[in-house]
Amino acid sequence: MKTNIDFVPGLEGVIAAETAISLLDTEQEKIILRGYDLIELSQQYDYLDVAHLLLEGKLPNSEEKSEMEEKLKAEYHVPTFVNDVFSLLPKRLHPMDGLRTGLSILAGIDKNMDDRSIEVNKNRAYELLAKLPTITVNSYRILTNDEPISPRKDLPYSANFLYMITGKVPSEQEMEIFDRSLLLYSEHEMPNSTFTARVIASTQSDLYGSLTGAVASLKGNLHGGANEAVMHMLLKAKTVAGFEKMLMDKLERKEKIMGFGHRVYMKKMDPRASIMKESLKQLCEKKGDLLLLEMCEAGEKIMEEEKGLYPNLDYYAAPVYWMLGIPIALYTPIFFSARTVGLCAHVIEQHQNNRLFRPRVHYIGER
Amino acid sequence: MKTNIDFVPGLEGVIAAETAISLLDTEQEKIILRGYDLIELSQQYDYLDVAHLLLEGKLPNSEEKSEMEEKLKAEYHVPTFVNDVFSLLPKRLHPMDGLRTGLSILAGIDKNMDDRSIEVNKNRAYELLAKLPTITVNSYRILTNDEPISPRKDLPYSANFLYMITGKVPSEQEMEIFDRSLLLYSEHEMPNSTFTARVIASTQSDLYGSLTGAVASLKGNLHGGANEAVMHMLLKAKTVAGFEKMLMDKLERKEKIMGFGHRVYMKKMDPRASIMKESLKQLCEKKGDLLLLEMCEAGEKIMEEEKGLYPNLDYYAAPVYWMLGIPIALYTPIFFSARTVGLCAHVIEQHQNNRLFRPRVHYIGER
Repeated sequence: MKTNIDFVPGLEGVIAAETAISLLDTEQEKIILRGYDLIELSQQYDYLDVAHLLLEGKLPNSEEKSEMEEKLKAEYHVPTFVNDVFSLLPKRLHPMDGLRTGLSILAGIDKNMDDRSIEVNKNRAYELLAKLPTITVNSYRILTNDEPISPRKDLPYSANFLYMITGKVPSEQEMEIFDRSLLLYSEHEMPNSTFTARVIASTQSDLYGSLTGAVASLKGNLHGGANEAVMHMLLKAKTVAGFEKMLMDKLERKEKIMGFGHRVYMKKMDPRASIMKESLKQLCEKKGDLLLLEMCEAGEKIMEEEKGLYPNLDYYAAPVYWMLGIPIALYTPIFFSARTVGLCAHVIEQHQNNRLFRPRVHYIGER
Repeated sequence: MKTNIDFVPGLEGVIAAETAISLLDTEQEKIILRGYDLIELSQQYDYLDVAHLLLEGKLPNSEEKSEMEEKLKAEYHVPTFVNDVFSLLPKRLHPMDGLRTGLSILAGIDKNMDDRSIEVNKNRAYELLAKLPTITVNSYRILTNDEPISPRKDLPYSANFLYMITGKVPSEQEMEIFDRSLLLYSEHEMPNSTFTARVIASTQSDLYGSLTGAVASLKGNLHGGANEAVMHMLLKAKTVAGFEKMLMDKLERKEKIMGFGHRVYMKKMDPRASIMKESLKQLCEKKGDLLLLEMCEAGEKIMEEEKGLYPNLDYYAAPVYWMLGIPIALYTPIFFSARTVGLCAHVIEQHQNNRLFRPRVHYIGER
C-alpha cells in the first residue's frame, strides 16, 4: 500500500470522519448540531433537550423530556466503590486525572461490556450523563479533602449539578446561566478530544475507554485547560489596567494567550462567547460589580486591535463560572461533563459505521 | 479555512506524523526501528537493549545497559495505594480496564506533572518500564481473587516479568523466548494505540493520560485483542482437523479471522511471526507435544490458499504464550506492557515538535 497524501501537521483541514452530528460552518460562522443552529438552540431549549437531540437525532417532546429526566434521576447514584477509590488517590492528583480514573473504573458496573449495539450504547450514554456530575464533583471534593456530596433528585439536572459544586441551591438565574454553559459546551464537531474518542472507538473498544482517552485529551493546555488559564490571568491582573498591561506584555514576549481564536473558524467572535458575555453581564449587574466584565471587554479590544483575534467560549465561560462560585480547578472537568453527551454520540456513530483508524508516518530517522 | 483533502475512511494511507522512531518499510517488508531492522535486532539484542534504542536513539554499551538495569530495579516498587485501588474494583472488570486504571492513578506519584521536558519525560518512561510488569500482573491477579506478587530484583527484567505472571522462575529458554516476544511487540510505527497516544499528547496533555488512552485503544477487538482471539480459536478447535474445519466454516460465513494480515503490509508472512513460530517449535519440541505447532501450520496453509493472507505476530505469539503458561486474559495486557516503551518514545517526540491534532469532518446530517 502506498501513502497517497502529503503530510499536514496536526491533520489540519484533513477530513477524518463522516458525521451527521455536527459541523462548524466556517462560511457562515455557525455551529450546526443535527441540522439546528447551536445559538438558536441555546435561546429556546435547555441542556437536556440538546442532549436528547444529540443522542436521539431529534428534540424531545414534553413526554419524552419528562421520561428522560426520570431516567436520569434513577441513575444519579454512583456505587460506593467509586468514592472509596477517590479516597485512596494521592491528593496531588489533577482533578482531570481524578475524573479520568472515575470513568475508567465505572466500566466495572457494566454487565454488557461486549455489546456495541446502538441501544446498549445509548443506555450507557444516559447512565454517564446521569452520573458524570456526581463523579466530576466528588472526585474533586475528595481530592481536596472535602466530604462527598449526594445528588438531589428534587432539583432539575443543571440545578443539581451546580448545587453539588457550590453546596447551595442556585437561584433561577444562576441555574439558567449554568445550564446554558453546559449546552454551549455540549458538542463542537471534531476537536482533539472527540477525535481521540473516535480513534479509540474504531478498534471496537468500548465507550468508557473512549471517554477515558477523551478526558486525557481535554486535560491538555492546548485544549480544555484554556478556561482555567483565562481565570488565572484575570485574577492575577486584578484591574482593567493590570489586565491590559499583562496582555500587552505577553504579546510583546510572543506568548500564547489562551481564550482567543480557534484553529477552524472565528473571523469574528465565537457566537458561544457572545452568549456567555451576556450572562457575565447579567451576573455582574446582579452583584453590582462590573469589574470582571470590564476587564474582559478591555482584553477583547486589545486582542482584536493587536492580533485580529476574537474571544472563544472559554474566554467568557471562565469569568461566568467564577461569578457562579465554581472552583477554578473544576472548569475543565465541567467542560468535559457537558461534552460527554456529544462524545457519546460520536462513539455510537463510530461503532455503527466503523473503519479502524490507522494512518501512516513520514519517516525522518536513519536507515 | 477550507478542507483540502478528500475523505479517506480510517485515514488509510494518510501521513499523520513525522517520526524518527520507526517505519514499516512496505517495499522491503521490513520493520525499521531507529535505523535498525527489528528482526536483526531480535537476533542479537534483548528487550532492554531495544528499549534503550527507542528512548535514547542508540543501543546501550555494556555500562549503559547495567546502569539501565539498576535504574529499573530501583523503580520496580509500586506504591501500596495502587493495589488497594485494584482491590476495590468490581471483579467483572476486564484486565485491560484494570491496567488502564492502574496507569491513570499512577499519575498521582508524579511530582513534576507539568514538566514536559525531554529529560523528565524520559525518566517517566523508565519508571513506567519498571513498574508496568508489576501493575499488569497485579491488576489481573487481584481482579481474579489472587494475592498480589512482589517483583524479584535478583532476576533479569523479562525473567522477573514471567516469574510474576506464572509464579515460578522460568528456564533460560523460556526467559529468552518471552523476552523476544516483548522485543517484537515493542514498537510498530503508527498503529491505532500509538496514534491515540500522539493525538492526546498533542494537546500538551501528559504521558500517563496518553498511555491511558492507548490502553483503551489496544483493548479493542480490531487491535490488541487479536492474540487472545487466536488462542480461544485454537483451544476450541482442539485438533488439526478441527481447526481446519473451523477456519473453512468461518471463511464460508465470511467472518473475520484474527491473526492474519495487516492493514499496511504483509504480502508475505509477518517477519515477527516467523520468529515466534520458531519459538513455538522449540517449546513444543521441548515438551514433546507438537499439536499446537501443527494446528497453526495447518491454519497458515489454509489462509494462504483460500485468502492469500499470512500470519501476523499475534497468530504465533498466542500459542507461544500458552506454552509459557501465561493466562490468556494477560496476552493483551502483556502486549501493552511491551509496547509502553514505544508509546513513550512517540509521546516524547510529539511533545518535542508539536502541532495539535484537529482534523475536520464531512457533514452528512441535515441542514
